[in-house]
Amino acid sequence: MNVVVRPKELRSAEELEARLREIGATRYHNLHPFHKLLHGGKLNKGQVQAWALNRYYYQSSIPLKDAVVLSRFRDREVRREWIHRVTDHDGIPGGEGGIDRWLKLTTGLGLDPEYVESTQGILAATRFAVDAYVNFVRDRTPLEAVASSLTELFAPGIHEERISGMLEHYDFIDDSVMGYFRKRLDQAPRDAAFALSFVKANSHNPAEREAVCNALIFKTQVLWVQLDALYHAYVEGHIPPGAFVPDGM
Amino acid sequence: MNVVVRPKELRSAEELEARLREIGATRYHNLHPFHKLLHGGKLNKGQVQAWALNRYYYQSSIPLKDAVVLSRFRDREVRREWIHRVTDHDGIPGGEGGIDRWLKLTTGLGLDPEYVESTQGILAATRFAVDAYVNFVRDRTPLEAVASSLTELFAPGIHEERISGMLEHYDFIDDSVMGYFRKRLDQAPRDAAFALSFVKANSHNPAEREAVCNALIFKTQVLWVQLDALYHAYVEGHIPPGAFVPDGM
Repeated sequence: MNVVVRPKELRSAEELEARLREIGATRYHNLHPFHKLLHGGKLNKGQVQAWALNRYYYQSSIPLKDAVVLSRFRDREVRREWIHRVTDHDGIPGGEGGIDRWLKLTTGLGLDPEYVESTQGILAATRFAVDAYVNFVRDRTPLEAVASSLTELFAPGIHEERISGMLEHYDFIDDSVMGYFRKRLDQAPRDAAFALSFVKANSHNPAEREAVCNALIFKTQVLWVQLDALYHAYVEGHIPPGAFVPDGM
Repeated sequence: MNVVVRPKELRSAEELEARLREIGATRYHNLHPFHKLLHGGKLNKGQVQAWALNRYYYQSSIPLKDAVVLSRFRDREVRREWIHRVTDHDGIPGGEGGIDRWLKLTTGLGLDPEYVESTQGILAATRFAVDAYVNFVRDRTPLEAVASSLTELFAPGIHEERISGMLEHYDFIDDSVMGYFRKRLDQAPRDAAFALSFVKANSHNPAEREAVCNALIFKTQVLWVQLDALYHAYVEGHIPPGAFVPDGM
């Protein structure tokens, strides 16, 4: 029978880190079947479009999320350390940021940029999951807000796999549209290293360490739910009312 | 190609009502394949358990949602009209409310009440969708908050179909656990009639009428996403990490 499970107490920063890595190894979305299809060349162009269109909502919400995180810290040392996350995605005036690079990908895939930026065709599940992330960093403790970013510990592996897999398998993908992922190979490890040392230094008892782990679990769910919804709609063919319909589907 | 669609202007309360009914006819979750399976006796006990377990999170969040709606109105006439929605679900001290009736259903299905109330085994998609509903009524205008309840216009039909379909088809369901739905047959029409006249009387221009329609569309998505997630996990068999696993699945 399914019964309530109580997690084991984490007594040190080292036990915390080990548990965080275990969460990544069992729940990060590199394990999701949709990614196996995406990276293995098993999707058609319409399905890759659906992925990039929905993921635009996630990408374009990240600077909002990080602006909320900034607003949670009176300690300006943390803000100084965190603020580049906003500019990484937004770019500086006249420059190019992560969102621009994502729009290069969607445009390269043949999607109308106005349609992409309107977010009109995204799955409601994408919106609910991404909005849950922005709300989480506003409503929970600053420690949990930082901890929820820790999926970046596991990101470089998936980005490398994605770049090589997508270039190899899809004739509608070329190097010029993969800039987003290349750039993240440098950015993510720096961000993850700061967040990991922050949560190790700032969780002082088992309850706080458990909250940190739950924040990471929450974030893996934000990512997993998005892929479940894509898989259901565009692999299994249950597109909900009002969502993007690829040509010929 | 998928392009941005701009909705047609609604110029009167009558045009608004017609559009709301059209949204119900095309987007309400009575159309969802999961409900066709549920009401037609095509699910096994574990799948019905998964539905009731996840839906508990929705049911138990409704009084929170309605408490937020109450808090949006300085006009005490509206609060007087709205407050029974909280007590309908919570019951009065010593009495029985909708949440108690839902727990009778989950217990009748063989689920541990402590496990159900912990919400530990629900799908993350359920949590994100339901929380989006509570946040919506807090963050949008009071008019939109009321409008988001309008799915109740379409509820009596689905409840009647559910009561007769589930009693007929499942030997693990008997009349004693279906009290929640019987009660809603009386409650929902009264609530829906108030909300419909409220939005007709209080939307004064096409922009407000469009906001009302979008609030109803949003709410249909809250319901639809929950069934998509159940279908994906428990019909197609992609149960995400950490979620309820029925015996023998």
